[in-house]
Amino acid sequence: MEEFKEISIIGLGLIGGSFALNLKNGGFKGKITAVDLNPEAIEKGKELGIIDDGDTEGEAIKTADLVVIATPVGAYKSVIKTIKEKIDRNKKVIVTDLGSVKGQLVYFCEKELEGVAPFVGGHPIAGTEKSGVENSVNGLFKGAKFIITPTENTDIKAKGKIKQLWQKLGSEVIEMDPYYHDQIFASVSHLPHVVAYSIVDAIDILSKKFKTDLFQFTGGGFRDFTRIAMSDPVMWRDICIENKDNILEAIKTFKNALTEVEKLIEKNDREGLKKFFEIAREKRNKIQ
Amino acid sequence: MEEFKEISIIGLGLIGGSFALNLKNGGFKGKITAVDLNPEAIEKGKELGIIDDGDTEGEAIKTADLVVIATPVGAYKSVIKTIKEKIDRNKKVIVTDLGSVKGQLVYFCEKELEGVAPFVGGHPIAGTEKSGVENSVNGLFKGAKFIITPTENTDIKAKGKIKQLWQKLGSEVIEMDPYYHDQIFASVSHLPHVVAYSIVDAIDILSKKFKTDLFQFTGGGFRDFTRIAMSDPVMWRDICIENKDNILEAIKTFKNALTEVEKLIEKNDREGLKKFFEIAREKRNKIQ
Repeated sequence: MEEFKEISIIGLGLIGGSFALNLKNGGFKGKITAVDLNPEAIEKGKELGIIDDGDTEGEAIKTADLVVIATPVGAYKSVIKTIKEKIDRNKKVIVTDLGSVKGQLVYFCEKELEGVAPFVGGHPIAGTEKSGVENSVNGLFKGAKFIITPTENTDIKAKGKIKQLWQKLGSEVIEMDPYYHDQIFASVSHLPHVVAYSIVDAIDILSKKFKTDLFQFTGGGFRDFTRIAMSDPVMWRDICIENKDNILEAIKTFKNALTEVEKLIEKNDREGLKKFFEIAREKRNKIQ
Repeated sequence: MEEFKEISIIGLGLIGGSFALNLKNGGFKGKITAVDLNPEAIEKGKELGIIDDGDTEGEAIKTADLVVIATPVGAYKSVIKTIKEKIDRNKKVIVTDLGSVKGQLVYFCEKELEGVAPFVGGHPIAGTEKSGVENSVNGLFKGAKFIITPTENTDIKAKGKIKQLWQKLGSEVIEMDPYYHDQIFASVSHLPHVVAYSIVDAIDILSKKFKTDLFQFTGGGFRDFTRIAMSDPVMWRDICIENKDNILEAIKTFKNALTEVEKLIEKNDREGLKKFFEIAREKRNKIQ
């Protein structure tokens, strides 16, 4: 981590805040700054001792030697513009990100930053359903996977430094093609979020139909099941738009699976239903 | 609880076992027996000190003054047959159940037991994704809702005794029409289980498509989200068959909600998506 003297985090929410917190707790001796449109986030970050300084205009970027984009992915265009304006072009600055969508976004950042700074795409497989710097979690990245998504243009030295940084935070770093990343996470992360929001919506519709607040009858299973529906709407809106094709494909596959169960129920197919549930349970059991 | 001298539990799984365990821990001084087709369940129950005695043939029913059906709902026909054969018709015995489906099943049990014993339908809103008497949970019913589903035929005294029993176990007892119960729990419990099994199936199909084990990339959100897919396949198969119409209706409503999100994504409707997710988050936030 001592490769870097000053790290500037763009977007001080739960992930950016946790990144800062774990750098500090991991013994990072350099300066940590943040840029956020919301001055309250900067104030809270300073109060919590997570960041040393920060501003809403991007001034903090000027003196950084590592810039970390931690905003919702829908803000990348405007963030990259600010970085290009503020970054010190006379210094070797690395730009990286923590976004949940990679693919075209990585190529966009690379192209925009060409001749300005090397860009290394990254995605920590960690988080909670909460939002905001005040909910930053100590140890969030420990034992978690960190996906690094180099392309044919990626600066090898910059990639090595980012990899080291995340290993020091306790993450298991895995290299992956940016487009392949988006297919995988459309399935295992984006689809479940879309489904969780949708099931809450369905329960709301059924509540109106049955003229009773169905949420009062939910148990622990439902609470676990829909916890991710408390996630940040803007973050997930942006992910859905930026990873549109893969998510639509995953939804389609899921709908087909659900239709299969529907047909088994319609046909009273006791053996078929049991087998479907058994196979799913077996697969799920493997990850504990 | 001292209303009863000997309680016999039919089906010694996680729910039946937890019922016995919490009776013992709650100071019940009578005898607790169990009947299960699987002799290992009886042996384990005795080893754990949860039951005093038991058998696989239903002999334990003969001396009981409370018989509690705790099998999957698909076994009720055969269970009721055994109860009618074994129950002491010279004693005032009450029969109750812990099944997740009520509606027609309650009327079936009542009709079959007419002139034999009063039947009181019940459903504790508690459980875990685990199965088996060895996973019985102390305190499982404390603070949980217990739905009691009387009909126009229900014996008022018997209902009062069952109500008292569950209140002593720490549950909040709520009376509900058996058919209304099935509509409500098709939405808040049965639908989420079907969806959880289906999403695991979809991830498995996508794993084959992408030639990679996608489960290795799942995080804590996915694990919470699919925990209920580890539930007992036979129990859930039976629930799907016995509460067929309500579950198919709930699936239909959910599919429509999902299709709405799909369309918003297809149209790149940023405002619409954000609003959909915000409303769902707000509803989910209320139950914490």
